[in-house]
Amino acid sequence: MSMNSFGHLFRVTTWGESHGPALGATVDGCPPGVTIDEAMLQHWLDRRKPGTSKYTTQRREADAVKILSGTFEGRTTGTPVQLMIENTDQRSKDYGDIMEKFRPGHADITYWQKYGIRDYRGGGRSSARETAARVAAGGLARAALAALAPKLEIRGYMTQIGPYKMDHDRFEDVQIDQNPFFCPDAQAAEDWAGYLDGLRKSGNSVGAVVEVVARNVPAGLGAPVYGKLDTDLAAAMMSINAVKGVEIGEGMNAATLTGEDNADEIFMGNDGQPVYSSNHAGGILGGISTGQDVVVRFAVKPTSSILKTRQTITKSGEAAEIITKGRHDPCVGIRAVPVGEAMMACVILDHILLQRGQIGGAVGETRGKIG
Amino acid sequence: MSMNSFGHLFRVTTWGESHGPALGATVDGCPPGVTIDEAMLQHWLDRRKPGTSKYTTQRREADAVKILSGTFEGRTTGTPVQLMIENTDQRSKDYGDIMEKFRPGHADITYWQKYGIRDYRGGGRSSARETAARVAAGGLARAALAALAPKLEIRGYMTQIGPYKMDHDRFEDVQIDQNPFFCPDAQAAEDWAGYLDGLRKSGNSVGAVVEVVARNVPAGLGAPVYGKLDTDLAAAMMSINAVKGVEIGEGMNAATLTGEDNADEIFMGNDGQPVYSSNHAGGILGGISTGQDVVVRFAVKPTSSILKTRQTITKSGEAAEIITKGRHDPCVGIRAVPVGEAMMACVILDHILLQRGQIGGAVGETRGKIG
Amino acid sequence: MSMNSFGHLFRVTTWGESHGPALGATVDGCPPGVTIDEAMLQHWLDRRKPGTSKYTTQRREADAVKILSGTFEGRTTGTPVQLMIENTDQRSKDYGDIMEKFRPGHADITYWQKYGIRDYRGGGRSSARETAARVAAGGLARAALAALAPKLEIRGYMTQIGPYKMDHDRFEDVQIDQNPFFCPDAQAAEDWAGYLDGLRKSGNSVGAVVEVVARNVPAGLGAPVYGKLDTDLAAAMMSINAVKGVEIGEGMNAATLTGEDNADEIFMGNDGQPVYSSNHAGGILGGISTGQDVVVRFAVKPTSSILKTRQTITKSGEAAEIITKGRHDPCVGIRAVPVGEAMMACVILDHILLQRGQIGGAVGETRGKIG
Amino acid sequence: MSMNSFGHLFRVTTWGESHGPALGATVDGCPPGVTIDEAMLQHWLDRRKPGTSKYTTQRREADAVKILSGTFEGRTTGTPVQLMIENTDQRSKDYGDIMEKFRPGHADITYWQKYGIRDYRGGGRSSARETAARVAAGGLARAALAALAPKLEIRGYMTQIGPYKMDHDRFEDVQIDQNPFFCPDAQAAEDWAGYLDGLRKSGNSVGAVVEVVARNVPAGLGAPVYGKLDTDLAAAMMSINAVKGVEIGEGMNAATLTGEDNADEIFMGNDGQPVYSSNHAGGILGGISTGQDVVVRFAVKPTSSILKTRQTITKSGEAAEIITKGRHDPCVGIRAVPVGEAMMACVILDHILLQRGQIGGAVGETRGKIG
Repeated sequence: MSMNSFGHLFRVTTWGESHGPALGATVDGCPPGVTIDEAMLQHWLDRRKPGTSKYTTQRREADAVKILSGTFEGRTTGTPVQLMIENTDQRSKDYGDIMEKFRPGHADITYWQKYGIRDYRGGGRSSARETAARVAAGGLARAALAALAPKLEIRGYMTQIGPYKMDHDRFEDVQIDQNPFFCPDAQAAEDWAGYLDGLRKSGNSVGAVVEVVARNVPAGLGAPVYGKLDTDLAAAMMSINAVKGVEIGEGMNAATLTGEDNADEIFMGNDGQPVYSSNHAGGILGGISTGQDVVVRFAVKPTSSILKTRQTITKSGEAAEIITKGRHDPCVGIRAVPVGEAMMACVILDHILLQRGQIGGAVGETRGKIG
Repeated sequence: MSMNSFGHLFRVTTWGESHGPALGATVDGCPPGVTIDEAMLQHWLDRRKPGTSKYTTQRREADAVKILSGTFEGRTTGTPVQLMIENTDQRSKDYGDIMEKFRPGHADITYWQKYGIRDYRGGGRSSARETAARVAAGGLARAALAALAPKLEIRGYMTQIGPYKMDHDRFEDVQIDQNPFFCPDAQAAEDWAGYLDGLRKSGNSVGAVVEVVARNVPAGLGAPVYGKLDTDLAAAMMSINAVKGVEIGEGMNAATLTGEDNADEIFMGNDGQPVYSSNHAGGILGGISTGQDVVVRFAVKPTSSILKTRQTITKSGEAAEIITKGRHDPCVGIRAVPVGEAMMACVILDHILLQRGQIGGAVGETRGKIG
Repeated sequence: MSMNSFGHLFRVTTWGESHGPALGATVDGCPPGVTIDEAMLQHWLDRRKPGTSKYTTQRREADAVKILSGTFEGRTTGTPVQLMIENTDQRSKDYGDIMEKFRPGHADITYWQKYGIRDYRGGGRSSARETAARVAAGGLARAALAALAPKLEIRGYMTQIGPYKMDHDRFEDVQIDQNPFFCPDAQAAEDWAGYLDGLRKSGNSVGAVVEVVARNVPAGLGAPVYGKLDTDLAAAMMSINAVKGVEIGEGMNAATLTGEDNADEIFMGNDGQPVYSSNHAGGILGGISTGQDVVVRFAVKPTSSILKTRQTITKSGEAAEIITKGRHDPCVGIRAVPVGEAMMACVILDHILLQRGQIGGAVGETRGKIG
Repeated sequence: MSMNSFGHLFRVTTWGESHGPALGATVDGCPPGVTIDEAMLQHWLDRRKPGTSKYTTQRREADAVKILSGTFEGRTTGTPVQLMIENTDQRSKDYGDIMEKFRPGHADITYWQKYGIRDYRGGGRSSARETAARVAAGGLARAALAALAPKLEIRGYMTQIGPYKMDHDRFEDVQIDQNPFFCPDAQAAEDWAGYLDGLRKSGNSVGAVVEVVARNVPAGLGAPVYGKLDTDLAAAMMSINAVKGVEIGEGMNAATLTGEDNADEIFMGNDGQPVYSSNHAGGILGGISTGQDVVVRFAVKPTSSILKTRQTITKSGEAAEIITKGRHDPCVGIRAVPVGEAMMACVILDHILLQRGQIGGAVGETRGKIG
């Protein structure tokens, strides 16, 4: 019942602080025989790495991942895989001012109240650096998925920064990796660049919406009632720091629809599998995947560490003003894209293992046949 | 690792189908010595009970709860509490048509694909009836909270039906129990009545948004990273059937805010506790409660069982049309209000137990002092 | 993290007290499609039922099990199975004397100290009646095993009562059901009858050793390190009330052996599977099943509720004498035989599900081939 | 549901192989504010370290532990503590012969069958080296216990090697650290030295019995039914590699006793707490601690890696002979003493946290008062 773990059979425990010697993920339950090496994991970490554009924190971290256990001759053995990332650019002197003052909108005050002790260097455990460990674990999950469900694809992208939404009519998959925002709409990416430049220079920050889609997900993943696939996805995304809202399919908008409009009609496809007229459900009915795209969206709040003066208090209860210097993300939502993908990969893999545990059969095979 | 359980120390497992002999909740980990009887639980079940107005299903269920274990002379003993609700008005003949056809937007097809067997009478395990068990468990959680955190209050209400939102400026707590919609805005309740009447007569249904607030929550509940209070609340709410989106505080709207606007400034209150200029965070920072109101919102999709003709397929893969007769909720979101409250009660109690387990001290006491 | 649950994927939560309205087991994670009905479960419960001979308690309980959920048309649906047994012969008046006094060797004092409240009627949750729920759950596990691993057999029997051991050279499987002791040695059973008659008449009780063997267990079940098959078996057996020791294979005797004597040599069998020269390991190496018989043994302490006068104290701390009247087992170990079998069935099934979850493949297939 | 984890609130996940770069323990749920540093952990690791006498493996490992996370300025922060031990003396060339052959009595064959891949260098995950991680975690548990229950003491020692038992009448606590066997009986230690010398020279090995006692354990730890303190202790000890039997109090011998002899009579002590005439129960009644010494015993089988020629098969199924060279323990039970102590510390701490989570109150306070 670790508070720092997620997953049922593919179980990930992350550990480490932003300014300690290292952080990482202990991954238990990975299927054996999965081909993996550090370079494969590094590929995903490099997408989340700070300092890749002027729109992310200028902290310089190699984020080089080491595999300390659970593999042998380039394949997983089925035993726990320890993934470690050493911290190399801590500069904890930057954080002197927040020893005594609590940053508004930040975990400083609650960690202090809860634990009575706080690693104030860079937020400690509440730092976005923790998500590097998730991306590493997600890289391992992707490698396992490549073996178990080779057609499955996971793709994350930003759909909104501040008040500016992308236009879904201009969605182009290839654009996602062409701009610093993982934005599939080239025009929006250009607009966002200008907007963020202004914010960054003024020392402010802004929120964002990230969407993650899993394609070619086998039907039958998830379970009633607390094991619903949407439950685990909601928990996975909400556990990412700074996330405050999670949606599956229509999400909050489902409130506005009638039953007639919302229910995706069902037809038989040419390949003998059911097809649907639409995907309001986000690929999940009754908590179980339908075989359609699984669509999750989450909102990331703006970074609290900003150069604007804010009112706060000190540990001794005195009123104070605070400006958070240091190197922060003007839009931490950007780097949340690979993190959301990683969480999706972990959840899908976990449910594939759960499915074959309880039900059996080959991955992708459904127990109940249609037709 | 039960898929039908939630909670860590206060652990609830629900069981039962809509048309079997009974359903219920097995609750383990309840503190001993909590005063409880069936009437106290019934109070909460009666708020969720079908047939209380023309806006909910006309199925007649007494929803009478029995305590089968875990209490002695009116108090909990610390051993598992079994809460059973017998089904009395199943009328499974109503469901003949859905033996072979899958209702669009419903769990019919995914349960069939996953399990290869399906209790088609009324949705079986995917029915909203399952939530009666949660309300019973929530009633027990409330009784425990009354002893442990007597000032804590949990209040749910609807804020939106279809496109119609309530006006927060007209919020009156006393209104919530004065209309069939748990709506704190008397004017909105009146408007909704007319709107739902029309929908109901046309055999259609609609979605809704429910907000649940917990007041006087002790600071310090929740934990990094996967044990964040928002993570467990998101999972709890998303696990309710038909829920497709969950928000904490600003929720999805957090994406639109700047860091300057979003960060709640901190001051010292007259009682020596921190106070905040606002509550964008929904009472949770870094996954840990601040002592402000904990605010959760969720969207409930419209009931899929409608009198409108929809295209679907049969188990043998043939195209078919379906109209779902039977007795259904035109807006199942209404009855989700007491369910959301129950989940909030369970999650808060669970985290109070977790908090004193890891940290110790009296409930409401913080380990780190301010001032 | 329920304290009253066991199993990982096949997860059993028992509930209920000896003198409440009912007790039972909530079983989650059962594979779908398993043929089951109440008569199939009753078969196993009848073996554990009190009052079947003069060597067990004379309490009269039908121990009639009802299936309240999780099945449809005689097969499991994959959702939680609720198994309920109503208490019919409570006679709680027998227990008046133990309201105030703590029975030596019994849970009375520790339940009181821990919880500050205690269902003193018959031991409440600590009563051997709780094991009826395990036997019901075990019956379901056996039905699932019959489908998944049809050659697997589980057999329990007594090997010792008090100082009297059976003679393994006289082991005859058919004898087990021919005497009231589940003893495979007809001669020993006869001797034990005389011995127990004396004890029973004198109001005393005695301990016993039970051995449970699972034959034709697939190789590959269990996992390092805390998921060792022996770990889960040890926990399963030790969790039975009155059990104070658990052994796998050689058990405590392994201490006396040299490495040369203890290591089971390996050969190829005629069927292309490994065979072993002996089975000191009890069918488990490195926590993983070898394919040999899995052999577990456990000691059951004597019933504490005896007609002998014992010194104790009252709740108010005064010295007192106590004689426990009521209807008790002179050797509660006898009825522990079907309980041990039930626990073995649950553990093996659980590990079969875990195995195919992490590794995949058909039940009984090993991932690594030999030859 | 990690297979490599144990504990509920104080949750330990061990990782790493004997010949990989490192191994360690990820510990979640440790109370905050516990004073700890690497030297404090090293103290316990040095007791388990190989090569301290001629009776343990001659592998040279510094077993130097590093704390990578979860502490700040010498105290725990309440977040996961990562404890890493680098492997420095792997010499994997010693293991060439076991690439193809399975060692009898060893996990080689089952790991291969289960996973289809095996880190054959030194047993990989099944090696006794894994227990170093447990000792490190146990050191942290002891530090937390020192703060929470300062009177509590945990002491392990050997009571038997091969057929030679110590004499309890010669028990002297101070002797335990005066001989290489952790034996409290000086005379026995001398006898064992001679016996083991002979075995070691002949290339053979032998089993042992270890007893671990916890003194001044608060009453009230543990819970019905699967959360019994004896259940968790049995699982904890049985999960140690090479352990094949576990006993609480009288253990297997409980079978031989009558109810009259076995039940520990209860009296009031001078300090107003119950005292008992004896401790057949091993300090646990109904799964809950009584306040007496908690007494656990376990049998460790002889090391399978011996210099004697044994019959076995190869991966390709051919008959073969094997002699295991390399550096092995003639009696691996010796080094199991600090491991058993570590497991006891982890279990007791975990149950203290569980107790105050469900019940509340100060550590050592009972909810139900006597007198």
